[in-house]
Amino acid sequence: VRRYQAPDEYPFFPDVLQQPLLSPVAYPHLLHANDVNVNPRLHREYIDRILPTACGQSAEQPENYGSAATADVQCLQALSRRVHFGKFVAEVKFRAEPERFARLIRAHDTAGIDAAITDAAVEKKVLERLRLKAKTYGTDPSLPAGGKIDVEAVVAMYENIVIPLTKLVEVDYLMQRLVGTEWEHREL
Amino acid sequence: VRRYQAPDEYPFFPDVLQQPLLSPVAYPHLLHANDVNVNPRLHREYIDRILPTACGQSAEQPENYGSAATADVQCLQALSRRVHFGKFVAEVKFRAEPERFARLIRAHDTAGIDAAITDAAVEKKVLERLRLKAKTYGTDPSLPAGGKIDVEAVVAMYENIVIPLTKLVEVDYLMQRLVGTEWEHREL
Repeated sequence: VRRYQAPDEYPFFPDVLQQPLLSPVAYPHLLHANDVNVNPRLHREYIDRILPTACGQSAEQPENYGSAATADVQCLQALSRRVHFGKFVAEVKFRAEPERFARLIRAHDTAGIDAAITDAAVEKKVLERLRLKAKTYGTDPSLPAGGKIDVEAVVAMYENIVIPLTKLVEVDYLMQRLVGTEWEHREL
Repeated sequence: VRRYQAPDEYPFFPDVLQQPLLSPVAYPHLLHANDVNVNPRLHREYIDRILPTACGQSAEQPENYGSAATADVQCLQALSRRVHFGKFVAEVKFRAEPERFARLIRAHDTAGIDAAITDAAVEKKVLERLRLKAKTYGTDPSLPAGGKIDVEAVVAMYENIVIPLTKLVEVDYLMQRLVGTEWEHREL
């Protein structure tokens, strides 16, 4: 259904995509050309770090393999979309201060770019909002016990994996941001 | 992923199912043989009554066709599973009072069966639990306004469509329950 034609969706297995049944949508052109795609890394982190924290033994029963795989696809695609939003964030930051970023990019100063895009206060607010959402949606309100998930594990997953990967996307995107633009060679 | 081999999953388009990649699971045999499947009716109700109540104009934009269709599949399959749980409920009720149900079934007294399986107090509790869940999950806790969905529309959908269809499944299942059993011809 043309999911991977949307500018905020990235396939994990691009080699086996089929032709969409729906005709293309004319999306607005917001990003600079780039080939940033951290899905292979996200896929590995999901298996090595996210799943072991999130899942107990119950998912190990063969009856669950099918539905677990279906849920995995939804989780991975949602995480991928969230992480690749970093491109739009980076584009906005670049447009706000093009000269500052052009200097850092031309100096290959990835640490400097990482520092320039980091806003600790915003990250803290994101984690607080996430904690509140995990608490709200991860609760069965009709049960006295309530909580169904480990809220702090969700927050830690965001803090240790989702936010760093998002920033990696931002940095990688910015490293390609000057190609073919006036900023590539302009004197700074 | 062998979804439709599970005894609580019913396909909407059985004619286009492919062979599962996973090997079969040995599910416990709990139901009497039957061919009850109300998916065609649920599909119609979904389009004619559920969607018009649930959706505003926003879903009408072509950008949303693909993701809306994906969400439709999830909603329909969840509703179908819930409605066909009626078979398990009916089986338990039959086993508790086989002679009573055998009389009603042999008399083709579907109204009597419907009355026998109806528990108004339980239905009321189901709707209350649903209202609480719709309120909890249909809220963005980080927004002051909070509610994102029309909770009463969700409750009405359950009251007017899901519960009646579940009872229809129960009645239809029971109408086939005696075939090939001692109750088919035994003197009552």
